[in-house]
Amino acid sequence: MKNSNVYCVIMAGGIGTRFWPLSTSKFPKQFHDVLGTGKTLIQQTYERILHITDAERIYVITDKMYNDLVKKQLPDLQDYQIISEPMGMNTAPCALYSAMKIQKTDANAKILLCPSDHLIINENKFAEKVQLALDSLDQKDGLYTLGIQPTRPDTGYGYIQYIESDNPVKKVKTFTEKPNRELAEKFLLSGDFLWNSGIFVWKAQTIIEAFKKFLPDMHQAMFQIYDDLNTDIEKRKVNKVYPVLQKISIDHGIMERHKTVYVIPASFGWSDLGTWTSLYENSNRNRQRNAILGKTVKLYKSKGNLVHVAKDKAVVIEGLNNYIVIDTKNALLICPMESDQEVKNFVNDLKLSKGEKFV
Amino acid sequence: MKNSNVYCVIMAGGIGTRFWPLSTSKFPKQFHDVLGTGKTLIQQTYERILHITDAERIYVITDKMYNDLVKKQLPDLQDYQIISEPMGMNTAPCALYSAMKIQKTDANAKILLCPSDHLIINENKFAEKVQLALDSLDQKDGLYTLGIQPTRPDTGYGYIQYIESDNPVKKVKTFTEKPNRELAEKFLLSGDFLWNSGIFVWKAQTIIEAFKKFLPDMHQAMFQIYDDLNTDIEKRKVNKVYPVLQKISIDHGIMERHKTVYVIPASFGWSDLGTWTSLYENSNRNRQRNAILGKTVKLYKSKGNLVHVAKDKAVVIEGLNNYIVIDTKNALLICPMESDQEVKNFVNDLKLSKGEKFV
Repeated sequence: MKNSNVYCVIMAGGIGTRFWPLSTSKFPKQFHDVLGTGKTLIQQTYERILHITDAERIYVITDKMYNDLVKKQLPDLQDYQIISEPMGMNTAPCALYSAMKIQKTDANAKILLCPSDHLIINENKFAEKVQLALDSLDQKDGLYTLGIQPTRPDTGYGYIQYIESDNPVKKVKTFTEKPNRELAEKFLLSGDFLWNSGIFVWKAQTIIEAFKKFLPDMHQAMFQIYDDLNTDIEKRKVNKVYPVLQKISIDHGIMERHKTVYVIPASFGWSDLGTWTSLYENSNRNRQRNAILGKTVKLYKSKGNLVHVAKDKAVVIEGLNNYIVIDTKNALLICPMESDQEVKNFVNDLKLSKGEKFV
Repeated sequence: MKNSNVYCVIMAGGIGTRFWPLSTSKFPKQFHDVLGTGKTLIQQTYERILHITDAERIYVITDKMYNDLVKKQLPDLQDYQIISEPMGMNTAPCALYSAMKIQKTDANAKILLCPSDHLIINENKFAEKVQLALDSLDQKDGLYTLGIQPTRPDTGYGYIQYIESDNPVKKVKTFTEKPNRELAEKFLLSGDFLWNSGIFVWKAQTIIEAFKKFLPDMHQAMFQIYDDLNTDIEKRKVNKVYPVLQKISIDHGIMERHKTVYVIPASFGWSDLGTWTSLYENSNRNRQRNAILGKTVKLYKSKGNLVHVAKDKAVVIEGLNNYIVIDTKNALLICPMESDQEVKNFVNDLKLSKGEKFV
């Protein structure tokens, strides 16, 4: 039997700008089947989480504009399991709001907080590492995170340095920002740096206390409406409080400041699917190293491309190497793979000149 | 007053394969506003022809599958002005069928036969040269064509060599196939070669006689149903006869064999818009030499491209030089400008694997 005080919260409020034009503010990345598996990323996440706790203790926290998408893609969820944010905030408000709601239901709740839009290939290994974190909470309380064993000097991820020990649960030494290439190579060689996966495990009580200490304003604002949580007036109250909360990440706001943070090194075939290149690297590629999602795509003299297009569209490409070609009903992106970090800027440019129409 | 025995026949049965994916067998090139002028090519052709004769003597001959498109785009046409072919044939059957129908109406008819999908910039000059051909018919009967003064050694056009004289109307010496580069350069230097424009002027009687002499089978087949033309049973009869006609061009079938062919050298800013490159060259280009048709197209580090996309679609392109990017609802083409002659092959490949769905 699964542990009855284990809760999972899937964060599904992101916009996924770097995945434009597939991901748009109206229909972001987590609701797409970006890998062509037949399931969207949030559906994959939900099914992965079912290995960890019972369906009735799985929550999704998201911007209210995505409520309908969540309901449609995860029809097993009851209304109480969708935590609706009045607006897209960063991850700290997410963590606090969900923890308070759950803690009010179950004072001994343990929470797995995780993104909805990551790739995890080995689900069993993932479940095993999460279980290790959940079990460890009883022996030594603190904030737990899973750290991914790096396989390359990636400059797109934050890193976590840990203090070496024989225990599979390591004490965290420092969180670092995304490093430059040189530093990333040092991190990789040193052996005690892990990729920050954004997957957290903690007791509801412990994370709430951490907010009280490190983000007291946010804690106070949310604590004011604590009595109203899980009641009919919750929504109205949250609408008032939420806009004044600080838009800060749980990493910056809490993890980097907290003194009792543990990391569990893990390797379960993970990617944050943060850019088109990372999608390319995690996709099936043919002999010409082209990763093609689409039904009628013809490539001539073309290698190393990522082509992503609707099933009912024909695509003919000649003489293109290492490009991204993403076509949707409303927009088309063509750029070199190495420019995938520019996508955010392209989207901003579009916003400036055309408003929200295409983004 | 315009000359009352002058008739114009616009040929609008082509498929424009080299303009895929904009041009498809269901909606070919002549029915598109490929230049972004606000008018389709056949609409531009029709308006150009209005300078030459009265509206009631303008005919369009086309594959019956395009009848509705013609009616929609040229709403002033009466039903009798749309000559409907049971199937797409080459230009010789076009020329004969239209000439017979018109000759039956007016034994002294003079006919301008011209394509529906060419670009002509200087309409006045065009009208002037056509008028010269029409007037010349009275002095020396024969088959007349307009020859375009070449401006470059184009290998995509057929050439017409004429016998030099002081008369603006020249006797044709030879028709040539599309030459290779070396030959095209010789043609250009020689000064007595013109591009074959596919624009013809003749008396109905004279062209019909030419068919009798050079394509006697075709003449005989059509002459059998001569009495039925312009009657209620024309359609039924044509349906029977047309499939057995030879699919041959008017150039091969008649012009190259006829002894009395005249050409009038002309320069009125002409292009057959036969390939994406020719469209590019005839389009407005910005400072980066990009020719863009679309409302929301952002190019970064990109020069010399032709981008053609629907108005309601956003396009972002980075790092592309001298490419063609054509996006329609059903298909997307990306290839180097220099590969524009390959488009036909791309379309054939698609046909082989997917049938007619996308072409």
